[in-house]
Amino acid sequence: MSELTIWTYDWVPEPPRGFVRDLRLRWACEEAGLAYSVRTVPFEGRATNHLAHQPFGQVPFLSDGELEIFESGAGLLHLARKTEKLMPRDPVGEAQTVQWMFAALNSIEMVSVPWWFLEICGQEDNLLAGWMGNRLDQLEKVLEAREWLAADRFTAADLLMADVLRVSKVRAFGDRPATDAYVNRVTDRPAFRKARADQLAHFAAADERMAAAG
Amino acid sequence: MSELTIWTYDWVPEPPRGFVRDLRLRWACEEAGLAYSVRTVPFEGRATNHLAHQPFGQVPFLSDGELEIFESGAGLLHLARKTEKLMPRDPVGEAQTVQWMFAALNSIEMVSVPWWFLEICGQEDNLLAGWMGNRLDQLEKVLEAREWLAADRFTAADLLMADVLRVSKVRAFGDRPATDAYVNRVTDRPAFRKARADQLAHFAAADERMAAAG
Repeated sequence: MSELTIWTYDWVPEPPRGFVRDLRLRWACEEAGLAYSVRTVPFEGRATNHLAHQPFGQVPFLSDGELEIFESGAGLLHLARKTEKLMPRDPVGEAQTVQWMFAALNSIEMVSVPWWFLEICGQEDNLLAGWMGNRLDQLEKVLEAREWLAADRFTAADLLMADVLRVSKVRAFGDRPATDAYVNRVTDRPAFRKARADQLAHFAAADERMAAAG
Repeated sequence: MSELTIWTYDWVPEPPRGFVRDLRLRWACEEAGLAYSVRTVPFEGRATNHLAHQPFGQVPFLSDGELEIFESGAGLLHLARKTEKLMPRDPVGEAQTVQWMFAALNSIEMVSVPWWFLEICGQEDNLLAGWMGNRLDQLEKVLEAREWLAADRFTAADLLMADVLRVSKVRAFGDRPATDAYVNRVTDRPAFRKARADQLAHFAAADERMAAAG
C-alpha cells in the first residue's frame, strides 16, 4: 500500500456520485502521477462515526505517513507542495496558485454552494442570486483574458475552481462563455476523467456488494 | 517603508468598521512582530477600480516585495509561513494549522456569511439556519475538548476561526459556551486589540479628512 491514502465514504446515494470531494484529491494524484490508495469510512452514521478524523463528519481526508489532513483544500495544497505538476516552484507562481485556490473556495464556492442549497430546497426569490451573479461575472472577466488562473499554466487552482464551477446548476446560471469554455478545458483533462470514472466505479462496486449481500 | 504592505479601503461606512478583513493581516503581523505599512484603494468605485489587484473588488490584498496576494486566507498563510509565532514548523503542526485555516473559511464561514446575509436581508425562515446550527455544534464539541485548534497552542488557525466567529449575530446564534469562551480567549490577545484599534483609527481619520475638506 502506498503511503498516500484518500479516505471517502463506502457508499453514497446516486445524486452526489461524481461530485464527492475525494475527487479533488484523486484528480490531483492522477495529474501528478502520485501513487495512492482509497479507503473508506461508513456513510451510515457519518454524523458521528469518524469525527476523530473529520470533525464535521465529511469526506475526504488524506493520510500521508504520520500526517492526517481534512478539508479538501488543505489536502490539495499538501499534494500541490509535492510536485511542480500541480504548483510552480517559484514564489510568484506559488503565491498565484495559492491565492486562486482560496478564491475558488472562499470567493466562489462560499456563494455557489449556499445558493445551490437554497435552489434545491425550492426557495423562491433566492436572495443569494445577486451576489452569485456578481461573483461569476467578475470571474468571467478574468477568464476572458487568460486560459489558466495562475502562472500561465494548469495548476491546482484550476483543478479546484473547475470542480467548484462544474455543478450543472452553477453552469446553467447565466451565459458566461469564457467560464464555460474554461470548465470544458479543465475537465477535459485525462486525469479528471480517470478520477471521475474511478469514483463512479467505487460507488457502483458498493451497490454490487450490497445487492450480493441481499 | 517596510516591504510588507497591507492594502485596504480608504474609507468604509460605520457598520463594517472593526470587521474589514485587512484586520486579519494586521493582527497576524502584530502577533508575529512583522513590520508592515497600510496603504489604500478608494472605497468609491471599488467594483471596478482595483480589479487588477483584487479581481472581486474587495480588500485586503498584501504586497511583499515582488509578490502581491489577494484573499485574506492566502495572505494569512503567506505571513504564517514566515514565522513560528503563527504556525509551527514541524510537519504535523503545520498540517493541523493549515487544515483548520481551511475549515474556518470553508466549513464555517461558507455557512455563516450567507446565513448572516439572509438574516440582514430580513429573510423569514432562513433555510441556512439548520446547516449553520449543525456546523457550530460540531465545532463546539471540538472546542469543549481543547483550548486551541491546532498543535496545542495559538496559531493562525485560531486567528482566522475567531475572526469568523466573533460577528455578533453568529455569537448570538445558540448557546455554545466552549465556543464563546474560545472567541473571548482569542480576541483578548493584545495583538487583536491593537489591530482592531488601528483599523478603527484608520477609518476615523478618513472621516476627519472628509470633514476638514468640507
